[in-house]
Amino acid sequence: MTTVQTPSEFRQLCKQNKFTSNTSGYVPGYAQANVLILPKELADDFINLCERNPVPCPLLAKTELGFPNKLNNNQFIKTDNDNDDEDDNFDLRTDLPKYKIFRNSKFIKEVDDISKYWDLNDHIGFLIGCSFSFENELIKSNLKPKNILLNSNVSMYITKKMLNSSGVFINCPYVVSMRPYKLKDIEKVRDITRNFKKTHGEPIDWGYDAIERLGINDINNPEFGDKCKIDDDEIPVFWACGVTTQAAALTASKNCNSYIFSHSPGHMLILDIKDSDINNL
Amino acid sequence: MTTVQTPSEFRQLCKQNKFTSNTSGYVPGYAQANVLILPKELADDFINLCERNPVPCPLLAKTELGFPNKLNNNQFIKTDNDNDDEDDNFDLRTDLPKYKIFRNSKFIKEVDDISKYWDLNDHIGFLIGCSFSFENELIKSNLKPKNILLNSNVSMYITKKMLNSSGVFINCPYVVSMRPYKLKDIEKVRDITRNFKKTHGEPIDWGYDAIERLGINDINNPEFGDKCKIDDDEIPVFWACGVTTQAAALTASKNCNSYIFSHSPGHMLILDIKDSDINNL
Repeated sequence: MTTVQTPSEFRQLCKQNKFTSNTSGYVPGYAQANVLILPKELADDFINLCERNPVPCPLLAKTELGFPNKLNNNQFIKTDNDNDDEDDNFDLRTDLPKYKIFRNSKFIKEVDDISKYWDLNDHIGFLIGCSFSFENELIKSNLKPKNILLNSNVSMYITKKMLNSSGVFINCPYVVSMRPYKLKDIEKVRDITRNFKKTHGEPIDWGYDAIERLGINDINNPEFGDKCKIDDDEIPVFWACGVTTQAAALTASKNCNSYIFSHSPGHMLILDIKDSDINNL
Repeated sequence: MTTVQTPSEFRQLCKQNKFTSNTSGYVPGYAQANVLILPKELADDFINLCERNPVPCPLLAKTELGFPNKLNNNQFIKTDNDNDDEDDNFDLRTDLPKYKIFRNSKFIKEVDDISKYWDLNDHIGFLIGCSFSFENELIKSNLKPKNILLNSNVSMYITKKMLNSSGVFINCPYVVSMRPYKLKDIEKVRDITRNFKKTHGEPIDWGYDAIERLGINDINNPEFGDKCKIDDDEIPVFWACGVTTQAAALTASKNCNSYIFSHSPGHMLILDIKDSDINNL
């Protein structure tokens, strides 16, 4: 694959469908975002859901109706308005390596480009913080998450902890990610991740007691991602997870005939903001 | 009692210990706030706790260390800096009708004035949104809460739903208030309260199923407030409650030797902002 130096160059490759893989480890140092694209009938309730549940649903930015190429907060994607070459410009319909399409709560298919599905009169895109940012900080502090050590996907669980309701978003559960750590390292792990307020922050709970408190069905069978062995000197540590937003949108859209789009798992949007700048936003 | 027209006049009466009763129904139309005053060692974790749990813990404003008479947001209390008469000025140590004092998680006593206990080198005051604001809006829409109809205190329950942890604030539960409503009125009640984003917003859950989801011990035995009969054509409706912050501070301060202060239940701070302006903040 062509070597890229900048998030913008990386997004160009996605636009040209020259990059369609997992973004993990690409353009190091830059933050990545979960993407969710909803019809306008769900948008206001979704924004309120994020405001009421900022830990699992940290909303970074949104597009305006009719403008899939414009975010309401330009610190995440630097747009060059003087640029005459439209192909170089950001577009949420094309700049991810891979998308999933859903309708009526059901998965339809996976595609590299959603231009022909995005309804300019209906769809609004949302960028949601991603834990990759704090994982990089943990690595720097010699607390490399085990999923990265093992080159596997992080374990994710559906819990019985419910989001605070918002409009059509009713009875939507927290999804949590789990990384095992030694008990002696917990306070350091909490301190490091605490400042990442827009990418889930510190763990919401930890220890074997937390499995029952969170209402996790079976710690050995994550609902998403890969299983991860917890060694005898380790305990499970749980963070709120951005997959919560996708699960909530699917639950809430049972009677909604419009398409819903998300990034494919691990195939994120690469932002122009650095991990070190997303800390303390 | 002297008739007062404005929140400022009301606070003067409190300052002079001429008003020491429940504030319910006083200075109609103006918003009231929960007050919590913490030592600085708990302050940063508490602010982060509020940011991570904005529905039960809607932080409105705080004082600066050393200045119990100054808030960091002047839309809630209008201060008159040109006023030479110091007695007329706002002071969080005197302007509530009644305070509770705690230490090491234990209740010490109830007083009308905390001037001699407030340590200027240690204490920081926090104002937290109060559901009185949306209750007034429900009354206007012919959906008077039953606790007001019956002139009783709202029923409050400790749940098994946990706040998202923040530093020393670990394993702190949501406290919820309950108001019974007819099933047919639920969507209207949700719509009316939704916009009160700084005073708990829409209900977090409702219906008899919610009792188990929230982990409420006994719907007929509220942990705080008065019991409230739910009629056959009604269901319980649960809102996050500001008492959550007080309970969390008590849990987190077990090993803290400084005093903690709060308003006495129902003896709130009356703000200069109107109920109608606290809506949509």
